[in-house]
Amino acid sequence: MGSRLSGRVVAEGIGTALLLATVVGSGIMGERLFGGNAGLALLANSLATGAGLVALILTFGPVSGAHFNPVVTLAAASQGGLSWRDASAYVMAQVAGAILGVAAAHIMFSEPVFSPSSRARAGPEMLFSEFIATFGLLAVIWACSRRRAPAVPLAVGAYITAAYWFTSSTSFANPAVTLARSMTDTFTGIRPADVPGFIVAQVAGGMAATWLVRWLVPSTPGAARDVVVPHDEGEAR
Amino acid sequence: MGSRLSGRVVAEGIGTALLLATVVGSGIMGERLFGGNAGLALLANSLATGAGLVALILTFGPVSGAHFNPVVTLAAASQGGLSWRDASAYVMAQVAGAILGVAAAHIMFSEPVFSPSSRARAGPEMLFSEFIATFGLLAVIWACSRRRAPAVPLAVGAYITAAYWFTSSTSFANPAVTLARSMTDTFTGIRPADVPGFIVAQVAGGMAATWLVRWLVPSTPGAARDVVVPHDEGEAR
Amino acid sequence: MGSRLSGRVVAEGIGTALLLATVVGSGIMGERLFGGNAGLALLANSLATGAGLVALILTFGPVSGAHFNPVVTLAAASQGGLSWRDASAYVMAQVAGAILGVAAAHIMFSEPVFSPSSRARAGPEMLFSEFIATFGLLAVIWACSRRRAPAVPLAVGAYITAAYWFTSSTSFANPAVTLARSMTDTFTGIRPADVPGFIVAQVAGGMAATWLVRWLVPSTPGAARDVVVPHDEGEAR
Amino acid sequence: MGSRLSGRVVAEGIGTALLLATVVGSGIMGERLFGGNAGLALLANSLATGAGLVALILTFGPVSGAHFNPVVTLAAASQGGLSWRDASAYVMAQVAGAILGVAAAHIMFSEPVFSPSSRARAGPEMLFSEFIATFGLLAVIWACSRRRAPAVPLAVGAYITAAYWFTSSTSFANPAVTLARSMTDTFTGIRPADVPGFIVAQVAGGMAATWLVRWLVPSTPGAARDVVVPHDEGEAR
Repeated sequence: MGSRLSGRVVAEGIGTALLLATVVGSGIMGERLFGGNAGLALLANSLATGAGLVALILTFGPVSGAHFNPVVTLAAASQGGLSWRDASAYVMAQVAGAILGVAAAHIMFSEPVFSPSSRARAGPEMLFSEFIATFGLLAVIWACSRRRAPAVPLAVGAYITAAYWFTSSTSFANPAVTLARSMTDTFTGIRPADVPGFIVAQVAGGMAATWLVRWLVPSTPGAARDVVVPHDEGEAR
Repeated sequence: MGSRLSGRVVAEGIGTALLLATVVGSGIMGERLFGGNAGLALLANSLATGAGLVALILTFGPVSGAHFNPVVTLAAASQGGLSWRDASAYVMAQVAGAILGVAAAHIMFSEPVFSPSSRARAGPEMLFSEFIATFGLLAVIWACSRRRAPAVPLAVGAYITAAYWFTSSTSFANPAVTLARSMTDTFTGIRPADVPGFIVAQVAGGMAATWLVRWLVPSTPGAARDVVVPHDEGEAR
Repeated sequence: MGSRLSGRVVAEGIGTALLLATVVGSGIMGERLFGGNAGLALLANSLATGAGLVALILTFGPVSGAHFNPVVTLAAASQGGLSWRDASAYVMAQVAGAILGVAAAHIMFSEPVFSPSSRARAGPEMLFSEFIATFGLLAVIWACSRRRAPAVPLAVGAYITAAYWFTSSTSFANPAVTLARSMTDTFTGIRPADVPGFIVAQVAGGMAATWLVRWLVPSTPGAARDVVVPHDEGEAR
Repeated sequence: MGSRLSGRVVAEGIGTALLLATVVGSGIMGERLFGGNAGLALLANSLATGAGLVALILTFGPVSGAHFNPVVTLAAASQGGLSWRDASAYVMAQVAGAILGVAAAHIMFSEPVFSPSSRARAGPEMLFSEFIATFGLLAVIWACSRRRAPAVPLAVGAYITAAYWFTSSTSFANPAVTLARSMTDTFTGIRPADVPGFIVAQVAGGMAATWLVRWLVPSTPGAARDVVVPHDEGEAR
């Protein structure tokens, strides 16, 4: 039996690792099978990522809330849904898991364990895209988790599939994912120099959505603890 | 805290903006990545729109009902599910949000903020398509919301994905969406001159479905208020 | 207010019409946009049909059971879930609706209202495909409706999307659909001469599945009336 | 009426047969329609398999638990969810059903009933892929079935669609499936010589996930019997 926090942190780490393996691995497979056709590679990448998110949030949600995303964890902590001590453990597990997931994808496809990305993703339209993408993601997560918690896995998977297509940045919307994707010189990579701007835009978008939903859907006391997906801290102990 | 109506109107505006950003943005991405292959662009566009609708209706449904569509709002008002005063506020928010969403998509993809569409969508077969598309959409919304309200987000998203393919007009089925799409000279645009015909066909299709479902599925008194998605006016106050 | 049976029959007719409009319309759109690429046309056709079925069964299920298929109706009648008088009214509405749906698709795409198909679909492997396709469809419908009725719309939509790909006949699995598709000389057509063989194979597959599920999942008395989707005859009156 | 175990064993056999017909049949259809484009064939194959799994688990889950996979059955037996006697009957039915399903797919597409595959799938990265694929699959199944049993069909279908893309082996993740796919010299085949390595990697991945989830989500006594999907042995008798 793990202690309560240890189990939740392991769930965040493994879940984020499987998420990154899905994102990066399906990008490599798409790139290889479709040759130069970036549209078809993105189609496979977006469907695999959305479907994978549905499965992973259903799987790890009841244990840790299935944040897999520092913006979600920080927003939850800012609303009292998580202690700041737990939040920092979550974020560390997410970053470590994300990096591990990139390595796993690379090993599955016989790539070097890590390779700095050379893919430029810069410019104001990219930053605006990340702001919108993360604003939308957090609005979906917060509003659904307060009123329709069982639908969160489907809502997040569907949203991300759409957002891969409707933003010019293909919606990273997650600082741990962004950092880890700077370590893969494949379809889903991002040049390390472009990471900080993405993270700033993501945090800004996430904060805006948190404020909006707090105004639109006032939380009831009991709901505050169950961010993203209702989970039972007692049983996950 | 917003007042009751203000929160619902903001939800309609932001939801419709994100819907248009999804429709127009994914159309631009598809057009760019697939070059001249309109079929693959439509595939990406239809999957992104359907998935986005599922997420957005789950998100904003509990607040405002997630109409995002003047035909839905007017049909609801005609059945007593909404006061006419609230209905006009909804429609204004939908139109303003839709236009804002087009601008957001254009900025994300470095296009001019607005550009009048040059894409012709005219002829009796297009009008008949919009009649059928909106008839089907309103039948889905009305029948599900009366008997299976929690399934409305999935039903609408699935319906629209299908309707992009089975109508020659690619199913606008929404006057606010039609008007806003006249302002984008990209994949999903419509020539301003063709907008009025589309709107007339949409209103006719919506009225026909409303009459049909009222006959097929007589409403129970309690259900009349919860058009589209059950929502709690008290809590959204 | 319609009488009880009239409402159910109208629901079967309109639902089957919209199903055929979806099947035939998305086939025409796919064929036109993808030129000679039958694989991509089938991809669009299978996704549109599956998504459309989810929406239509959610919509009309609570009214009539959303059979849309004579094999389903006859199987239900053979198990006492429907009187034989009602069953014949259902079948007539399904056939009439299916033919109407083909006409609607043709009008939306500026094709002649009807055109006999010249597409050959014959040979023992096609008949075996239709036997397997209908066996699987009826097994899904019967087992889900007895134990997991709310999941029937998703199960049927998912099954048909898969079955378009795993059978050489692309899974008609429905005599009303087969008959109506003989009247369209487009992507989804079938030569009139090949219709009778398909229907025999479909009925045989449906009967085999009905026997199997009756043995696997003995029905409880209360469940017998709610074939396909629980519906309330009293309210649909 | 079948005896309790006989009904469950028949459900495992027929379900696994339909699963293999879906996997192999959709692979043949994709290969034929898309010619040399392996990416598009995999897209059709992954969508058909995921959708088919959703339908089949919804259908047979309430009868037998819808394992369709010896690793799932052995993991369940190791946790006391199934007697070892029942487990061996399940595994035999799964293997026999899988082989039957390949034959059915071949007959539907006019291929020889069986044909040894010549497709090499070897090397450490393939074995690592199968370890990860089965680890993820069992984590999804175990965690969902303990806390969110009704979501298992969707979670498994979504996971497998994603895993076809994010592993270099395209995620067999199932010894019965692996064995049967050595008998088809088509898109989804695997050279008989590569089967044993796959099975060892799958069992190792499945054991690792079983241990992890037992630690993360301690089972409650009542849940132990309902592996994968809650089912009622009494009614399935």
